[in-house]
Amino acid sequence: MKKAVVLLSGGLDSAVTLYASRKMGYTPYALLIDYGQRHKKELEFAKRLARECGAHLKMIKLDLPWKGSSLLDKAIDIPSLRSASRIKSLGIPSTYVPARNTIFLSMASSYAEAIRASAVFIGAHVEDSSGYPDCRQKYLEAFDRVVRVGTKRGLEKRLKLEYPLIKKNKAQIIGLGRSLGVPFQYTWSCYEGLSKPCLKCDSCVLRAKGFKEAGLKDPLYE
Amino acid sequence: MKKAVVLLSGGLDSAVTLYASRKMGYTPYALLIDYGQRHKKELEFAKRLARECGAHLKMIKLDLPWKGSSLLDKAIDIPSLRSASRIKSLGIPSTYVPARNTIFLSMASSYAEAIRASAVFIGAHVEDSSGYPDCRQKYLEAFDRVVRVGTKRGLEKRLKLEYPLIKKNKAQIIGLGRSLGVPFQYTWSCYEGLSKPCLKCDSCVLRAKGFKEAGLKDPLYE
Repeated sequence: MKKAVVLLSGGLDSAVTLYASRKMGYTPYALLIDYGQRHKKELEFAKRLARECGAHLKMIKLDLPWKGSSLLDKAIDIPSLRSASRIKSLGIPSTYVPARNTIFLSMASSYAEAIRASAVFIGAHVEDSSGYPDCRQKYLEAFDRVVRVGTKRGLEKRLKLEYPLIKKNKAQIIGLGRSLGVPFQYTWSCYEGLSKPCLKCDSCVLRAKGFKEAGLKDPLYE
Repeated sequence: MKKAVVLLSGGLDSAVTLYASRKMGYTPYALLIDYGQRHKKELEFAKRLARECGAHLKMIKLDLPWKGSSLLDKAIDIPSLRSASRIKSLGIPSTYVPARNTIFLSMASSYAEAIRASAVFIGAHVEDSSGYPDCRQKYLEAFDRVVRVGTKRGLEKRLKLEYPLIKKNKAQIIGLGRSLGVPFQYTWSCYEGLSKPCLKCDSCVLRAKGFKEAGLKDPLYE
């Protein structure tokens, strides 16, 4: 069976992407990158999720000695929905991490070459795209070209980038996840690392809205 | 003055690129990535070179828990010129590190955003291009697009990729370096980390040929 490297974060989108890669006929190799997030909760959830899915799991630690994002820099407050909207109206949210997906995809491409995988999966999608430049389809197409012309396996037409969620909104992603049997109770969306989700941050609000629109209950709260 | 992040390796090409960035009106911020090379010699040379140039220097350590290249994996013999030529005739040299330049450029782009730089410099050139897919102009153009559509500063048209050596051969790079005042005695090319260059490996042979063609003496041997 063909192998795929799947970027896993502990969140809902990458969990659905992991199960989608399996459905598409790949043996998934989850890659979990610890880049100094504010909390370790999403890492724990990612490990649990990979176990549930029966996926291989590789974790790497990455210390970037520069900051510039509220997700990395504890000195900057995480925006609540209200302030996040304010920031978004000015452009890009303060939770943007410089070139994050480019770093993640470059690591995943390297790992994919090393294990002779045929695809790299990322769970970027349209609702993220509104805020983060490195979640847009245009960007993913550009990175796909980097993989195809810049790696040995890409040149041999045996490595490509897959982003199956790109055109979906949160409710559609949750619907797809349900049909794939994703155990949502092992996914974490909240920017805070408390024992329960804060329900106030941008990410919590998007998740709650998604479950509501999909007509489903979020098992994380049960 | 505009800032530029310059990928520095300790070798000759990145040294010339560092001095070229300064000549082009940038304040250079050298980025040195220790990715588990076989020897630390090139790291020491890079530090010395940055000091000589008066460039800022940032060093990051990167442990990739997968191998696949003779430059990372001590179990694989480094090819001498003869065997390297043999491997090259089959395609890509065994010294190829999976997606190396993509990883380096992604780190450099992130650093560039964090310090609000206007360019990322890399010293890739035509003679490397024959062997490594991620040294070709086609690849660098693809990555330039990733920077322009995938970063905040790129979208604002304030960040781009520069590769001033791309069309030059080793002799031309050495000629340019001389005109820029590059102290070649602080550059290291040999794949081995002995006290003196081995003069047998691919990289040593290319360097010697370059100096000969440029009609110059290599100060490293004086």
